[in-house]
Amino acid sequence: MAERLGRYTLRFPSRPAVLAGAAVVGTAEGEGPLRAEFDQIFPDDTLGESTFEKAESALQREAVALALKKVGKTPADADFIFAGDLLNQCTGSSFGLRDFGIPFVGVYGACSTMALALGLAGLFVDAKAAGLALAVTSSHFCSAERQFRQPLEYGGQRPPTAQRTATAAGASVLGAHEPGKPYLAAATFGRIVDLGVQDANNMGAAMAPAAARTVADFLRDTAMSPDDLDWIVTGDLGAVGTELFRTLLLKDHGVKLAEARHADCGLLLYDREKQDVHAGGSGCGCSASVFNSYILRRLQCGSLRRVLLVATGALLSQTSTLQGESIPCIAHAALVCAPGKGKE
Amino acid sequence: MAERLGRYTLRFPSRPAVLAGAAVVGTAEGEGPLRAEFDQIFPDDTLGESTFEKAESALQREAVALALKKVGKTPADADFIFAGDLLNQCTGSSFGLRDFGIPFVGVYGACSTMALALGLAGLFVDAKAAGLALAVTSSHFCSAERQFRQPLEYGGQRPPTAQRTATAAGASVLGAHEPGKPYLAAATFGRIVDLGVQDANNMGAAMAPAAARTVADFLRDTAMSPDDLDWIVTGDLGAVGTELFRTLLLKDHGVKLAEARHADCGLLLYDREKQDVHAGGSGCGCSASVFNSYILRRLQCGSLRRVLLVATGALLSQTSTLQGESIPCIAHAALVCAPGKGKE
Repeated sequence: MAERLGRYTLRFPSRPAVLAGAAVVGTAEGEGPLRAEFDQIFPDDTLGESTFEKAESALQREAVALALKKVGKTPADADFIFAGDLLNQCTGSSFGLRDFGIPFVGVYGACSTMALALGLAGLFVDAKAAGLALAVTSSHFCSAERQFRQPLEYGGQRPPTAQRTATAAGASVLGAHEPGKPYLAAATFGRIVDLGVQDANNMGAAMAPAAARTVADFLRDTAMSPDDLDWIVTGDLGAVGTELFRTLLLKDHGVKLAEARHADCGLLLYDREKQDVHAGGSGCGCSASVFNSYILRRLQCGSLRRVLLVATGALLSQTSTLQGESIPCIAHAALVCAPGKGKE
Repeated sequence: MAERLGRYTLRFPSRPAVLAGAAVVGTAEGEGPLRAEFDQIFPDDTLGESTFEKAESALQREAVALALKKVGKTPADADFIFAGDLLNQCTGSSFGLRDFGIPFVGVYGACSTMALALGLAGLFVDAKAAGLALAVTSSHFCSAERQFRQPLEYGGQRPPTAQRTATAAGASVLGAHEPGKPYLAAATFGRIVDLGVQDANNMGAAMAPAAARTVADFLRDTAMSPDDLDWIVTGDLGAVGTELFRTLLLKDHGVKLAEARHADCGLLLYDREKQDVHAGGSGCGCSASVFNSYILRRLQCGSLRRVLLVATGALLSQTSTLQGESIPCIAHAALVCAPGKGKE
């Protein structure tokens, strides 16, 4: 039975295990600093499919198949799949996962989806509503560009604040607690924050206030300080958003976050010196692939003991941008602990 | 603690209460047979907003405000809001609800959203993760037409199989069991079904197999027959889908569903003789507004005792249609019982 901590945080006393994770990525991600961490790097971003959207669906399918394989399970063993993506009507998930026959809970949190899906899967396992639950999401540079901005063929220039949507998918398998496996200790579901940023090429700035608020909520609810955590890992704030996030955390919430205690998946995924990714990575697949490879591996071996994954999402659409609207944002957080090392 | 019944159904032993519901609709819905049931009928489908998308957001905002008012609560009392809609990136929900400051779980299930959100809210309350939870969704004829088919200004003709997307929103407030209030006894989360229907103007045919499968799952898991329920209420199968649904239920699943035991929100919402709605109503707002007015009222007074709401969603996008893809569909079911009358 979940336990409410403070106003916004849920603790999972049964310690649902993150039994395995899988991360599959495209070419640019496979050329980045984390290349050795991924389960699969596709040499062709179409994955042999006829459209970018179908390629994105294929990414999700591969990630789920690999994650299940790691725990020796088949789709028939899974009780629920929590999935969403950035595509209109979340078709990356519905088309990618339609053949698995797993009860499907579609979620939408833009780039916050990995933490949102983890939190829901964790609650379902904790409440014994699910024995085995999957959390999965994806993004694709080419499908996202043409949907949120312009088709690639248009050749539009991107300003330095823009981020590169990761071509990637990540899937986690959750189940009842198992000694020796990392576990989901708590989750904080975010509130929507909209400070009036209207620039769809500066998502980091739009999302930073939401990340700061959710982290502040989590720390207050759990009576923790950043030093109780090894890392606070934001989803895809990038270079611009990362600076703003730390500033807002101190200024608005009185929380001093040392640089060594913070990492951002958008900055981990690419080498900004060598790769043309402007302010860093973004997209649901960014935090999904980094969490389910680099982060989870370090939790599995205990070199990281307590990680707060704070995935951030910009809840805009191309229509809302064209209508001159500002960008509502959200951040969901999941506390994942190394086996036997957690303090909840 | 949720109890798993069979393979696909969750029973909620704590009997989370549906404390109140609110339904707000546009002009066509307000001229239909249920006009006396709604909380508010807007005389202008723009609701005074400058775009159809903003009008849809306003519908959600109004429904939530009214539902909370009915139970004497404010947004600050709500622990979670589960919301989604048909718009690209679910902006009906994120823009409509951004000012409430309630932890926001974005869901996507197309027109199945009301049952999906009810199921999740019910589990959160049952697991004591939420004291008060909201489930809300909306649709708008004008925003949906231009997004899924053509802008209204184009004047495209619609075939007889087409349905009219309801301009409507519905919100339910769930909380711990209260004697005298209807309650959510169980939920079945659906699996994706895609039998290859490609016609985006015949959603009823595409969704009927998903509805049949979820109803069959529910009946098998709970060892119930249709006669144990007063009504199986599908979301928006319309005239074409309703016939198919009953046929498939018998043919594929061996379940005979008498006409008197079945109702479809898409057929209840409009008068097809007098209103130009082709095969009936559709859209997230269709089942949301009918459930939160007509159905819930009858559960409150006990004239209906056990209703299985089976909301159905077509998980397509305009892009997938243009790419020649078939339409994956899903149906989620929620069993809602009158106070003191339920058999779970």
